[in-house]
Amino acid sequence: MLGKNYDLQDCSLARALESLGERWTLLIIRDAFFGVRRFSDFQAHLDVPRAVLSDRLTGLVRDGILVRRPDEERADRHVYELTNAGLDLWPVLYSLLVWGRRHRSPSSRTYRHAACGGLLNDRGACPACSTTPAPQDVVITPKRGRARQRKDPVDVALRKPHRLLAPLAT
Amino acid sequence: MLGKNYDLQDCSLARALESLGERWTLLIIRDAFFGVRRFSDFQAHLDVPRAVLSDRLTGLVRDGILVRRPDEERADRHVYELTNAGLDLWPVLYSLLVWGRRHRSPSSRTYRHAACGGLLNDRGACPACSTTPAPQDVVITPKRGRARQRKDPVDVALRKPHRLLAPLAT
Repeated sequence: MLGKNYDLQDCSLARALESLGERWTLLIIRDAFFGVRRFSDFQAHLDVPRAVLSDRLTGLVRDGILVRRPDEERADRHVYELTNAGLDLWPVLYSLLVWGRRHRSPSSRTYRHAACGGLLNDRGACPACSTTPAPQDVVITPKRGRARQRKDPVDVALRKPHRLLAPLAT
Repeated sequence: MLGKNYDLQDCSLARALESLGERWTLLIIRDAFFGVRRFSDFQAHLDVPRAVLSDRLTGLVRDGILVRRPDEERADRHVYELTNAGLDLWPVLYSLLVWGRRHRSPSSRTYRHAACGGLLNDRGACPACSTTPAPQDVVITPKRGRARQRKDPVDVALRKPHRLLAPLAT
């Protein structure tokens, strides 16, 4: 067994990985940026066992990356949303995505600056505007002609252009 | 048991995490940026069990992130160095470090542009030069007055300013 902590590593990167390094955690955070907020939607999109998802969400709330609020549309249910610390993970997510599309497989989505439609470059900046948009100013769109592997409600809702962090209509 | 792969996630971030998402992997890559190249030095600096370190290094070589070469100074030994795909992970490492120092604990080191001594900003750019230095143009220096938890050869070698990727004299 490997412990979850890296106690002997005096390094802010090691500290970050203590909150982010478990399996599924970064994909849950990715989905939160996509606008997923409900337990059932995370589960449907990630195919992750309920117990694992519950453990990861609890940890992310404890660590101040997600906040759990009452669901205004469904009594006795909750939604999970990124805190400011969670929103600050956007450069981490985007840099992993850029590495993955360069060295693993092409991205299934485009990332554009909402204000002008410009494609973000590898540093997450809009070259047309010379700004680095905050995630809520980024629109994701599935690439045309790409075979869709999934048919869950989150995947279906993301088939149209979607602004990051806007709650998904599932 | 959770499998290592995220087969049903059509996402370049999920593909990236298949190579990077296991425990210790990103800390091994961090050490490779610091100039660690030998098995014994990774082990001394990370306190990671030999079997785990061996498994992670083998995976990183298989995945094209590290390359294993004969050690010119020690017969029958090898060194591990970052490939071009590995070097492209610098923005991932730096963004995790920035998040960790903002939301977890202050960094134990400063990151400066070698050419001018300017402190890198949160995007990894040198504000003085308006460039984003490649990692080999970044110098790390331990912060003064910081109590050092570790006394292994890698930690000792890193007590002086050190240019990233330059092989450590251990």
